[in-house]
Amino acid sequence: MDLVARPGAVTRLRARRFQDGVATDRIESLATEEPLEIRVGTTTVAVTMRTPGADFELAVGFLHAEGVLAGPDSVSGVRYCVDRALTPEQRFNVVTVDLEAGRGPVDLDRLSRHVLTTSACGVCGSQSLDVLAERGLARIAAGAAWPVGLLSAMPDLLRERQQVFDRTGGLHGAALVGRDGEVLAVREDVGRHNAVDKLVGWAVLGKRLPLSDVALVVSGRASYELAQKAAAAGIPVLVAVSAPSSLAVGVAERFGMTLAGFVRDGRLTIYAGADRVAATG
Amino acid sequence: MDLVARPGAVTRLRARRFQDGVATDRIESLATEEPLEIRVGTTTVAVTMRTPGADFELAVGFLHAEGVLAGPDSVSGVRYCVDRALTPEQRFNVVTVDLEAGRGPVDLDRLSRHVLTTSACGVCGSQSLDVLAERGLARIAAGAAWPVGLLSAMPDLLRERQQVFDRTGGLHGAALVGRDGEVLAVREDVGRHNAVDKLVGWAVLGKRLPLSDVALVVSGRASYELAQKAAAAGIPVLVAVSAPSSLAVGVAERFGMTLAGFVRDGRLTIYAGADRVAATG
Repeated sequence: MDLVARPGAVTRLRARRFQDGVATDRIESLATEEPLEIRVGTTTVAVTMRTPGADFELAVGFLHAEGVLAGPDSVSGVRYCVDRALTPEQRFNVVTVDLEAGRGPVDLDRLSRHVLTTSACGVCGSQSLDVLAERGLARIAAGAAWPVGLLSAMPDLLRERQQVFDRTGGLHGAALVGRDGEVLAVREDVGRHNAVDKLVGWAVLGKRLPLSDVALVVSGRASYELAQKAAAAGIPVLVAVSAPSSLAVGVAERFGMTLAGFVRDGRLTIYAGADRVAATG
Repeated sequence: MDLVARPGAVTRLRARRFQDGVATDRIESLATEEPLEIRVGTTTVAVTMRTPGADFELAVGFLHAEGVLAGPDSVSGVRYCVDRALTPEQRFNVVTVDLEAGRGPVDLDRLSRHVLTTSACGVCGSQSLDVLAERGLARIAAGAAWPVGLLSAMPDLLRERQQVFDRTGGLHGAALVGRDGEVLAVREDVGRHNAVDKLVGWAVLGKRLPLSDVALVVSGRASYELAQKAAAAGIPVLVAVSAPSSLAVGVAERFGMTLAGFVRDGRLTIYAGADRVAATG
């Protein structure tokens, strides 16, 4: 492969800052946004805009959320594309996931239709939940309670580790946190769904699924899409710094997840699965 | 049509709030998230998760951004679906756009592929810009300068008008602002791209395109997708409260837009098109 620098997570460019009406030209750091084409074997299944970094995890996590992976041993390899038709700059923007023989996607056509419809099949909210159940999403077991104090602390645990955000102010962050408060992994991306895909892909590749004793904390809002990805990974607790949507709560209720929102300033609100939250601690 | 309430922008549900360790059960307001199926004639072209409200504008704005509308007179009608196969709850989640005879989409198949790839064709950033140019996006003319003071004021003009955000804290907002500071339209949605589609759809249906003397202000970050939608509507100035991505700047530079980011606390940064910004005023 030619010697070409992989695109970085940060892009620097000259910009003009106005402060109280006074202009200064300076170099600013921006979060990089570049397309990533995800292939299964030789088939392109999606192109998503993402921040470069953890690309293999992103590709695998995306395929997991879409129900393409048959199990933890489905993935036989992940690689950047060396297709000679691609220019060197493009190669780090194409990731190929190879599946074990006999564990390939049963119906890539179904996936294509699914991606086409922005992960939202069905034309009312409850149908969107039915579609997830039909794809094999199971209700998450009750498990032991999580102390509310630990849930409250999670946004700070995430924030302290958002390295690219510190430089650009332009990235969503997500982290997996254990019951002891240990931060297992942190990922950042211009797309909030990508940050979560990267975490789930990390877990798939490390054979850590289901994440049945781990919480997912996200830096922004909780949508249907994020809740769906968490449920597909078996994550029992979803913590959002900002507001959940109605359908994120619908996913949490349907699949037995605990959903905490507005986790900031010493307060939080439990929108689903309050029985998994212990007031003490 | 049966008498069924249209889904509202706000969903109310019981939740448990913890404040400094003390739990209180109360009714909370959440931003509604429901799927919207967009049809052209009898063909489904996309399903997007959105907050109900301005659904006709969303459908038309989405089709405009995807390059499906041939011109301002392409749309002959927009309606909720009355397909008898749909249950009453579903009907307000399906919008059909009818096109004038002879002005239909030349290649819906191309659109499907395009939607499949999350609005990001090409596997490197500059190719993603080439694709937009091939779809007919033109460079926006220079025009008169905009005072930096007006750009600085735009986030507050938007924020003051975000009614659903006030109740839920869970919505992205976007507004079109004229050169005199008049707010022409404000839309909100759980999806930032939807809020912008709703504004552009409003402009299409009111035969106001191109929006050549109007700025678009958005409550969050500026991505490739938002910048692309603004450029397709001919909007010369994009103002983001938070950070732009590298490729949002790429779109702005390529199509002659001014892009302002981090517009808050008495400062702002111009990442592209600084010649359209006047320091005075």
